[in-house]
Amino acid sequence: MDKTILVVGSVALDSVETIHGKTARALGGSAVHFSLAASQFSPVQLVGVVGEDFPAEFRRFMKRRNICLKGMEVMPGKTFHWVGRYDRDYKNAETIATELNVFEQFKPKLSAEHRKCGVLFLANIDPDLQRQVLDQMEKPRLVAADTMNYWISLKKPSLLKLLKKVDMLFINEEEARQLTGEYNLIKAARLVMKMGPRGIVVKRGDAGAMMFFKDNILSIPAHPIEKVVDPTGAGDTFAGGFMGYLAAAPDWKNFNVIRRAMACGTVMSSFSVEDFSVKRVSALSKKDIDSRYGKYVDSLHVR
Amino acid sequence: MDKTILVVGSVALDSVETIHGKTARALGGSAVHFSLAASQFSPVQLVGVVGEDFPAEFRRFMKRRNICLKGMEVMPGKTFHWVGRYDRDYKNAETIATELNVFEQFKPKLSAEHRKCGVLFLANIDPDLQRQVLDQMEKPRLVAADTMNYWISLKKPSLLKLLKKVDMLFINEEEARQLTGEYNLIKAARLVMKMGPRGIVVKRGDAGAMMFFKDNILSIPAHPIEKVVDPTGAGDTFAGGFMGYLAAAPDWKNFNVIRRAMACGTVMSSFSVEDFSVKRVSALSKKDIDSRYGKYVDSLHVR
Repeated sequence: MDKTILVVGSVALDSVETIHGKTARALGGSAVHFSLAASQFSPVQLVGVVGEDFPAEFRRFMKRRNICLKGMEVMPGKTFHWVGRYDRDYKNAETIATELNVFEQFKPKLSAEHRKCGVLFLANIDPDLQRQVLDQMEKPRLVAADTMNYWISLKKPSLLKLLKKVDMLFINEEEARQLTGEYNLIKAARLVMKMGPRGIVVKRGDAGAMMFFKDNILSIPAHPIEKVVDPTGAGDTFAGGFMGYLAAAPDWKNFNVIRRAMACGTVMSSFSVEDFSVKRVSALSKKDIDSRYGKYVDSLHVR
Repeated sequence: MDKTILVVGSVALDSVETIHGKTARALGGSAVHFSLAASQFSPVQLVGVVGEDFPAEFRRFMKRRNICLKGMEVMPGKTFHWVGRYDRDYKNAETIATELNVFEQFKPKLSAEHRKCGVLFLANIDPDLQRQVLDQMEKPRLVAADTMNYWISLKKPSLLKLLKKVDMLFINEEEARQLTGEYNLIKAARLVMKMGPRGIVVKRGDAGAMMFFKDNILSIPAHPIEKVVDPTGAGDTFAGGFMGYLAAAPDWKNFNVIRRAMACGTVMSSFSVEDFSVKRVSALSKKDIDSRYGKYVDSLHVR
């Protein structure tokens, strides 16, 4: 059983401002946040694109974290740069600037090694690109995808084609409603399942997350955090913890395994919001993770 | 140890409209919703006021449910009548009419039997009245109160006087922020604790609830419901399940007991939203409750 996760998505430099401060060109992007969480549990290969300005230290730093960067192409030009700001409630990011730069020309090309990976995570990019990646894979045993409101609005037919081929979809609650026209999340998840995926993870921010898998429904709370500094990448970090755990498990279709994966996603994303960029997640030891995981799981155990 | 809960609050007739239909002058009010949930676990004595129009069948119906109505005074005039409407997302009730009627003259007078009750729940009424009730009690071993944005805005000094004397406060997340000026719920709860209560239950609607007790923090999800029909009274029903369980427990200060009480509150409120008025909660058997409680608790148990 191959535990290696191939992730395809954005690698970015993020300039973020929140009530607790700001960063300039910090390491970010969906594939990066995902990889740093997932690599705590399983080996990760990242496919993405950066410009010539991408700092060598970021590259070294990710390599040290069990992330293979052979698939991170360097193109002439600048790295994708996002400038955003959050209000006190962290509900909505206000985008001040999106400089796609080299990301606009991103055409993921997989190597022979990539194609053999057992697990694939298609981070939030154009669903046509997600499909092109999936079609290049040999025989992944688990395929998951993320998406966003933008693609649901503008590329729904492409997204629907993709959904037929994925096992698991990550989506936030508003997007689940947007995609299905159904307000109730149980009903919405059932409709999404009819589009293809047999597992749906509905991300709900500080309200936690829900998991729908076949007939199983699970709703779990967020791990309460006293100082939320920067929510950027929390969803990708959740997906990373979840998929990292599942990839390492002998039977990912067992609902007890999925339940533990949900707890891993919750715990990893709770770390990610505690500092800017990838600072907190990248500094974690196995002991830090085990300790919070233990506390979280114990708190939910009603005796 | 006296398990009897004295509840003081509103008894109302509610006319509610939601996307699933409407009711006219159905049984409602904070004390009623609370009592019907709490009486599944502990005996309840209700203190409230109704008008001459209050249907005899509602009275009979509550009595059958282990609720003592000796303290439900009948005054000349009409019963408190609330007319409201909910949108599809059930987040905010639009009040179309509030006819206080006899409730405007409500001056709770406790009998000798009431004063001896071991547990007191002060449902959401004027904090001056809540204090007058509390002052009449002999020596309750557990005092809990609910409140709302209206009193926080208009009677904060009175509310603060009350808080010094209660063990446990029920409050929703926006109210916790309003009362403390602190957005983060952990920080807000710590500030509320400094005002008096050693336990705070923060109600979060479909995001579940949080419990703060001394140094313990617990966040639990709502029980997912596929068809939400009417959320009126869900918070009072939560408080009823929670307090009913605690009142019957030998040591309510044990956090494992409090954890189970939170699960009882969650389960009772999940029933309450499934139909209009008190229909679903009042039709519940012990078996219905045990079955959903078991499923809920099991779903949260990460193995």
